[in-house]
Amino acid sequence: MVMRLRQQDPDFDARFSALLAMKREVSDDVNAAVAEIIDAVRKRGDEALAEYSLRFDRLDLATTGLAVTSAEIDAAFASIDPETLQALELAHERIARHHARQMPADDFYEDALGVQLGSRWTAIEAVGLYVPGGLASYPSSVLMNAVPARVAGVERIVMTVPCPDGALNPLVLAAARVAGVSEIYRVGGAQAIAALAYGTETIRPVAKIMGPGNAYVAAAKKQVFGTVGIDMIAGPSEVLVLADADNNPDWIAADLLAQAEHDTAAQAILMTDSAELGDAVERAVESQLTTLPRGEVARQSWRDYGAVIEVENFADAVPLVNRLAAEHLELAVADPDALLPLIRNAGAIFIGAHTPEVIGDYVGGSNHVLPTARSARFSSGLSVLDYVKRSSVLRLDAAQLRELGPAAIRLARAEGLDAHARSVAIRMNLPD
Amino acid sequence: MVMRLRQQDPDFDARFSALLAMKREVSDDVNAAVAEIIDAVRKRGDEALAEYSLRFDRLDLATTGLAVTSAEIDAAFASIDPETLQALELAHERIARHHARQMPADDFYEDALGVQLGSRWTAIEAVGLYVPGGLASYPSSVLMNAVPARVAGVERIVMTVPCPDGALNPLVLAAARVAGVSEIYRVGGAQAIAALAYGTETIRPVAKIMGPGNAYVAAAKKQVFGTVGIDMIAGPSEVLVLADADNNPDWIAADLLAQAEHDTAAQAILMTDSAELGDAVERAVESQLTTLPRGEVARQSWRDYGAVIEVENFADAVPLVNRLAAEHLELAVADPDALLPLIRNAGAIFIGAHTPEVIGDYVGGSNHVLPTARSARFSSGLSVLDYVKRSSVLRLDAAQLRELGPAAIRLARAEGLDAHARSVAIRMNLPD
Repeated sequence: MVMRLRQQDPDFDARFSALLAMKREVSDDVNAAVAEIIDAVRKRGDEALAEYSLRFDRLDLATTGLAVTSAEIDAAFASIDPETLQALELAHERIARHHARQMPADDFYEDALGVQLGSRWTAIEAVGLYVPGGLASYPSSVLMNAVPARVAGVERIVMTVPCPDGALNPLVLAAARVAGVSEIYRVGGAQAIAALAYGTETIRPVAKIMGPGNAYVAAAKKQVFGTVGIDMIAGPSEVLVLADADNNPDWIAADLLAQAEHDTAAQAILMTDSAELGDAVERAVESQLTTLPRGEVARQSWRDYGAVIEVENFADAVPLVNRLAAEHLELAVADPDALLPLIRNAGAIFIGAHTPEVIGDYVGGSNHVLPTARSARFSSGLSVLDYVKRSSVLRLDAAQLRELGPAAIRLARAEGLDAHARSVAIRMNLPD
Repeated sequence: MVMRLRQQDPDFDARFSALLAMKREVSDDVNAAVAEIIDAVRKRGDEALAEYSLRFDRLDLATTGLAVTSAEIDAAFASIDPETLQALELAHERIARHHARQMPADDFYEDALGVQLGSRWTAIEAVGLYVPGGLASYPSSVLMNAVPARVAGVERIVMTVPCPDGALNPLVLAAARVAGVSEIYRVGGAQAIAALAYGTETIRPVAKIMGPGNAYVAAAKKQVFGTVGIDMIAGPSEVLVLADADNNPDWIAADLLAQAEHDTAAQAILMTDSAELGDAVERAVESQLTTLPRGEVARQSWRDYGAVIEVENFADAVPLVNRLAAEHLELAVADPDALLPLIRNAGAIFIGAHTPEVIGDYVGGSNHVLPTARSARFSSGLSVLDYVKRSSVLRLDAAQLRELGPAAIRLARAEGLDAHARSVAIRMNLPD
């Protein structure tokens, strides 16, 4: 039985707050092990990478080499069926086109005094893209991380991917080439993060590291933060589906399960103004679970973290939607345009019965790296902005300095910073 | 004697790399103490805040109350001389006007298929602004943190400021009112961060916490990150001044000392193509140090972390400038416009001899919260973007789903995510 909350029940507020406070992740404390790995890579470079790859991935880098070769990528391409390759290229094209609109414009202007002010955007010189091994090695995620980097103008996009027992996912290699990744190294775990942050003989360091990974990778990213930039640490995936009675329960159930199949810690929530739809979706979920290859994962997620929330009407439920701040929000309701302006906290919003969230995972064009665990209250999905940075520019002439200088001197003195005051006063021939 | 590096010397590369690698901060491990404080505030709310304020700030909140009252702010205003107040208002006006240009625009459009895509920006609902006590309690920093929040449309801007022995800086209160801070509480340290993140009986929680603080505050921000967003953790301040022979050494020395007086861990670097200017600036620094109230702080910073770098010419030195990635960069050179397009990594750039960095600290209009410790390679100064977040919006109709659906299904199957495939296929009456 999935969790069922009814807005009119007296204990609703308490149960809703408990739903919000639910912790879906237990992170192991691997900090000491990770610190040791980072230290070894800093001290012994490629040699340390080779040792860890042998130990953790049963891979002999002396045989394979660290860099994935162009010939290997060619072979990967040749092994993929044409329809899948076409799908990958369609996804790439749509993602690139959408993200091209995100490049921020420089802004140079003169104010009323003639002072020149500016904001100039430049690309980060080199970024690392961590791609997990095994099941979580998603070619779509390679596109989502690499395309905005390319659009931003990042020169070096350096991918690392673990290669357990020598196996690489051909579609991941194909996605990397399609998206314009510049270098690929077959190394994973904390050792890959250390190599990206500090460099080795073979891998030149980058300035920022992106991409998801296991507990070791997450801990390593936190430890190298400062030396390099990092992206957000993504948690398990979530969807909140708002659906009224006029929906096909099978469609809604499929959307909930698409989220639930990701991870036993994923969370799928249906919010509806129709108890009947709620019941029907619950039945459809049970029925669909029986024929799903990843049914056991999905069943566990739905049982532990799934929920059906009955509300009186959607307009009054908007504060609940904003408090949930879901990573993905579907609006399968009669008048989504009435709700949309009221919704404030959501990573991505999917409108109408014909926009399942899955379209956004692959071919919608928007990014699928989105804020989880209610962090849509204060952060955004991945975009070109994550691959650029801004320098402000200021230029005064002597007359403008005479105009603005006295106020700066006054504030500097009020803050007890006399050298600050002097740096202005000395240019105005004012007493110190 | 300050460190002197010459580009033509054989050991230049090694010494320059050592300068880059220099750690200027030792952070105490206060994590256990901070965890305990956070836990106490979560469990006992205002009561815990009162206990810690008594212990750390010798302040009895039972007498003063937690909230700073409007009458107290009125009294603060009345105590400030009119010229300083005017300077504060000029700074506010210029900062507000500059930051208003940073508000990102929503972007809604239809692609060639008629699919509707959008990016919608919304303000964070509530932010906390930590203001340190004592010397580091800068009214200008209140403006720099609060004004962009106000411009972004943040409804609640909640300031906390420690109040050791009951003392509050009147100019900080005035800056808070001028900038539109909504609530002010006299509490500091890790306990203030805990209150902002989790809320107490008196302080409602916020979604993101901004502002500098000591080791306890920094550790607390890291610990509550996830529950709320946080800004970057700022390190000690830095300036890199590029100056040719045609400069007044006293002006350049004053700029270096304005940075050095902040903190013994601050860093001021002169890069010049003239050994003579280098010598003259060194002499001017020594001379000005003797008459500086914060001379001991500045002297220590200059001795431990200051440097004069002689280069052959500025164009060839651009890679060094980009590797240093200074928080503040002054271009006091004959042709700054030739250099500017080549400079990639810098928090803020100040052009020409009449634009001392100090103008940017107060009245330039741009933000003075900038990336330190070489993080300008991957991050930007504070802006309106730090107070908003983006939701992507996607809307397909049935025909558009039929167009894009097959590629999504193919990629989902290739990733082994059959429930993803089903969520699309079921809407197209395709076999599962």
